[in-house]
Amino acid sequence: RRYQGAPTGTDIECEGWRQEAALRMLNNNLDPEVAERPEDLVVYGGTGRAARSWDAYDAILDELRSLASDETLLVQSGKPVGRFRTHERAPRVLIANSNLVGRWDDWAHFHELEAKGLMMYGQMTAGSWAYIGTQGIIQGTYETLAELARQEFGAGEGDEDDGAGLRGRLVVTGGLGGMGGAQPLAVTMNGGVCLAAEVSGSRIDRRIETRYLDERVDDLDEALSRAEAAVEAGDPYSVGVRMNAADLLEGLLARDVVPDVVTDQTSAHDELDGYYPSGYSVAEADRLRERDPQGYVEASLDTMVRHVEAILELQERGAVAFEYGNNIRGQVEAHRNLNHAFDFPGFVPAYIRPLFCRGKGPFRWIALSGDPADIHRTDDLVTELFPDEPHLHRWIDLARDRVAFQGLPARVCWLGYGSEDGLTERARFALAMNDLVRTGEISAPIVVTRDHLDAGSVASPNRETEAMRDGSDAVADWPVLNALVNCAAGADIVSVHDGGGVGIGNSLHANNHVVLDGSELAAEKARAVFTTDPGMGVIRHADAGYPEALDEARRSNVHVPMGEGGEEDA
Amino acid sequence: RRYQGAPTGTDIECEGWRQEAALRMLNNNLDPEVAERPEDLVVYGGTGRAARSWDAYDAILDELRSLASDETLLVQSGKPVGRFRTHERAPRVLIANSNLVGRWDDWAHFHELEAKGLMMYGQMTAGSWAYIGTQGIIQGTYETLAELARQEFGAGEGDEDDGAGLRGRLVVTGGLGGMGGAQPLAVTMNGGVCLAAEVSGSRIDRRIETRYLDERVDDLDEALSRAEAAVEAGDPYSVGVRMNAADLLEGLLARDVVPDVVTDQTSAHDELDGYYPSGYSVAEADRLRERDPQGYVEASLDTMVRHVEAILELQERGAVAFEYGNNIRGQVEAHRNLNHAFDFPGFVPAYIRPLFCRGKGPFRWIALSGDPADIHRTDDLVTELFPDEPHLHRWIDLARDRVAFQGLPARVCWLGYGSEDGLTERARFALAMNDLVRTGEISAPIVVTRDHLDAGSVASPNRETEAMRDGSDAVADWPVLNALVNCAAGADIVSVHDGGGVGIGNSLHANNHVVLDGSELAAEKARAVFTTDPGMGVIRHADAGYPEALDEARRSNVHVPMGEGGEEDA
Ligand SMILES: NC(=O)c1ccc[n+]([C@@H]2O[C@H](COP(=O)([O-])OP(=O)(O)OC[C@H]3O[C@@H](n4cnc5c(N)ncnc54)[C@H](O)[C@@H]3O)[C@@H](O)[C@H]2O)c1
Ligand SMILES: NC(=O)c1ccc[n+]([C@@H]2O[C@H](COP(=O)([O-])OP(=O)(O)OC[C@H]3O[C@@H](n4cnc5c(N)ncnc54)[C@H](O)[C@@H]3O)[C@@H](O)[C@H]2O)c1
Repeated sequence: RRYQGAPTGTDIECEGWRQEAALRMLNNNLDPEVAERPEDLVVYGGTGRAARSWDAYDAILDELRSLASDETLLVQSGKPVGRFRTHERAPRVLIANSNLVGRWDDWAHFHELEAKGLMMYGQMTAGSWAYIGTQGIIQGTYETLAELARQEFGAGEGDEDDGAGLRGRLVVTGGLGGMGGAQPLAVTMNGGVCLAAEVSGSRIDRRIETRYLDERVDDLDEALSRAEAAVEAGDPYSVGVRMNAADLLEGLLARDVVPDVVTDQTSAHDELDGYYPSGYSVAEADRLRERDPQGYVEASLDTMVRHVEAILELQERGAVAFEYGNNIRGQVEAHRNLNHAFDFPGFVPAYIRPLFCRGKGPFRWIALSGDPADIHRTDDLVTELFPDEPHLHRWIDLARDRVAFQGLPARVCWLGYGSEDGLTERARFALAMNDLVRTGEISAPIVVTRDHLDAGSVASPNRETEAMRDGSDAVADWPVLNALVNCAAGADIVSVHDGGGVGIGNSLHANNHVVLDGSELAAEKARAVFTTDPGMGVIRHADAGYPEALDEARRSNVHVPMGEGGEEDA
Repeated sequence: RRYQGAPTGTDIECEGWRQEAALRMLNNNLDPEVAERPEDLVVYGGTGRAARSWDAYDAILDELRSLASDETLLVQSGKPVGRFRTHERAPRVLIANSNLVGRWDDWAHFHELEAKGLMMYGQMTAGSWAYIGTQGIIQGTYETLAELARQEFGAGEGDEDDGAGLRGRLVVTGGLGGMGGAQPLAVTMNGGVCLAAEVSGSRIDRRIETRYLDERVDDLDEALSRAEAAVEAGDPYSVGVRMNAADLLEGLLARDVVPDVVTDQTSAHDELDGYYPSGYSVAEADRLRERDPQGYVEASLDTMVRHVEAILELQERGAVAFEYGNNIRGQVEAHRNLNHAFDFPGFVPAYIRPLFCRGKGPFRWIALSGDPADIHRTDDLVTELFPDEPHLHRWIDLARDRVAFQGLPARVCWLGYGSEDGLTERARFALAMNDLVRTGEISAPIVVTRDHLDAGSVASPNRETEAMRDGSDAVADWPVLNALVNCAAGADIVSVHDGGGVGIGNSLHANNHVVLDGSELAAEKARAVFTTDPGMGVIRHADAGYPEALDEARRSNVHVPMGEGGEEDA
């Protein structure tokens, strides 16, 4: 099946732009520039799919093309299953992917159902039609590393080092897939040097083509010496080595090399379809998986144990170690009883949670026209609307300069609640974009969405809600409320997924899209959704007792009925 | 804390009836006539609560009293946690109770979080403020037995036998507790004879006082001969025997008596606090539980094995046997490796699923005025609106005659999709009630809600979704979509719960309320919700390939995008 990507331009196939936006986003997900294996409907993250089958894909497009402006389409694990009259301000599409009843909520049951054609893995943004390629994750990775540099290496916000705090630092990682591929660029954007292991040569090459990675050097000694030279010189530099990440880390230990930072973004969350065991070429491993899946899983978990032990040993020797959300710690703890796996922290509690407390998260927008000029106009809007946030300006400059568009032009910019004037940052920005669409300064509607990984949209005890202050890591009421309140507020697409980046049974999360078509209705929806959505982040963290969230609630007038621990707020 | 029940009358404390309805329903849940232990906020079903604490309860009432008509209140496991501006047609309250991330979704984690004050058990209708006492379950039991009579004994829908199909039939069961106590009345309502074992004499007596049971006879031979005489005469009759249910069934086998039907509603789902072992009086068993809980559990499971073996033997000898949702099969399978336990079916696949396929389920409505006359007016409305459904008339006559109100006057009547005229049965009835409120024939608004156990609102592999035709028992996308689409359609309260009657991790389900205040907005909301809600039942079962559902979809014009198994419908 040949795949083309999203339609562009200002002519539409559907009855309205809100349906058309869904159609374009689904197709954009599968753009060969965006998706990892569009021919199999796989978008990213192991087997994260956009639709259950090509038949289901076709049926979704048919439904969207004929969907009225007061109807709502229901999608169940990538298959369209129903369509009802609701009303104009209600969502046009509701999506539930990969959700299982608790006791059956594991890979074994999931795979059984998947084999019967009853389910698909939605990952986070794949099954919710919000994936925009590596450009979508790049700012998250950049922000994480910038915060790490501040906390670990004393780079200061606002000072000249800010955003270049990794200068002269070596970051070692693994995995250059759809999201992991953002790592080398995020490191060099922060001024540092990145050495990354990736078993697949074509993945490495792809990162070079798209300017996320500088070089490929398949000999570890050679790669290491180039990296060390760049560290010496204080030059930003990134290099990919075709080898297993566990082998690479053990190679460093054998050579007595201790990097400044060690992390990993191989797809360890999925021991069968995501992670590659050591001792096999990719082709050999693929055959083993086919022939003997159980044997594959054992080999894969054996390698993960070595991988985690090597990270812990590097940490012991002085490297800053953190898990980058692929659940490699949870995997070896659950399946190999490696109880000290969690001795190195996850990235959220370490670097991201303070942002979540203020409702800050990966807000992103996509130009449905397909015209890069539309996004460049919004780049300018960031500086116009937020003149006093130099950090945002620096980010927009970097992104404009170094991040190649994939599929429909898009931009990511972490915005939060912060509503001193009654409008949140996110709402203010969305309303301004809606105005530009209305006046024609932007040529076609903009769709705003985000990662499922956001301030108040996810329960994931091994990642986003790891080590919550009050112990509420596993409480999944929050993502359910997030989906419901955004549906109530009038988002255009609302989705709820199980699994995502940490695997089936390990998380529950929600997402939403809002289409800015320049109308007054769009403005109302945007005003509501971009208050409820980041607001969920503030109240969820306020409820858990985080001072930053309680401060944000006070500062921004977020109503918290019982305050912290049952106290009334003022 | 002294507890009074719901406010009644036509004066309201809140800004509108939709908020007032939430306030009254929450309080009605806790009416001493309705709730099991209102002083502990426990409504029913073990520890199913209406609010997390009395402070949380007070805070919820405060929030409802000041909630504007375009605001939405968020409740997380019984605690109000936020409140946002949405819009008028959006829900006023969104509730998520007891939801946990899959891998942590069990009693151990739940109890840990509950002890920290972070969660509460919502059961099904307790935490969603929709419980109305035993009057809520009676029709479910009645319908189950009526369907059994149709399927097993050839009683025909519409013919004179319908609703009296158990005439001359003996039904043997156990357990006369809060829900099981509905069994004898449901049997006699169907014209049959019920012989029920119950270890607690006071429970038997309570059922006689409330007119759910006719007689108590503690000698098995005597009870049996009275029951057989009634069978002979074709008279409806029910008798409770104070004895263990396992002993009673073995007694029948010894006497070569094979009843027409055998089932059970002892609380076998809980081997320590629910089920009583044979060979002990209640007092002796209670002391054993105190002294030696492990010994109690062993004795209890030993009795359950005998109990299940006796049911299977009676089935072998010709009785119609089914499990009544107390998980007694799962218990002996899990704890005693009794692999043939599931050789007798659960009640849903056997008798209820054909109704679910047509979107039929426990639709119920409550008079917020507190005036029984309002419900009596709606009783008449059933016959006015559905002149050709004698089954409904018979039910309404029976209910009016024999079911006592508890708390706010309420009625249950299983209605479905069945929309030949573009309006579903549920929508048609709701709109007519809304008109009666508008014209003042009914003195105050009516709130419509249902059980979480409904056609398209629950995933529960040991009960409501046991043995689905396509194997999709554990797929939880459906209740998530149910909650979202009802939120989109404009229900006034939407809730999503984990656990319910089968315990944490064993089910996910959703509920909704619609307030009929006589307004045009209420009519729009009712029209939409009472299409989407039963419609979910039709499409969920159509997707699983049930012919009844596919037939209903054709008959009622329910759009099923891919038909059964991927085929396009016409
Ligand atoms: N928390 C976050 O924000 C976040 C962000 C990105 C990714 N992640 C997680 O990181 C992982 C990667 O995501 P992705 O979208 O890039 O996945 P992907 O499946 O597209 O890419 C994974 C890559 O790792 C490579 N790989 C697998 N095992 C390897 C091994 N042992 N050694 C070296 N290379 C190996 C694969 O060849 C592939 O290129 C996932 O587990 C994802 O959930 C989390
Ligand atoms: N699927 C449904 O719709 C549905 C409906 C009702 C009940 N149930 C299930 O049925 C069970 C009963 O519910 P309930 O609310 O009536 O519970 P309950 O705890 O109020 O009552 C159970 C009764 O069984 C008696 N009992 C226990 N063990 C006994 C034994 N071995 N022999 C005789 N009597 C015994 C107890 O004394 C008690 O009166 C529960 O497991 C419940 O989950 C399911």
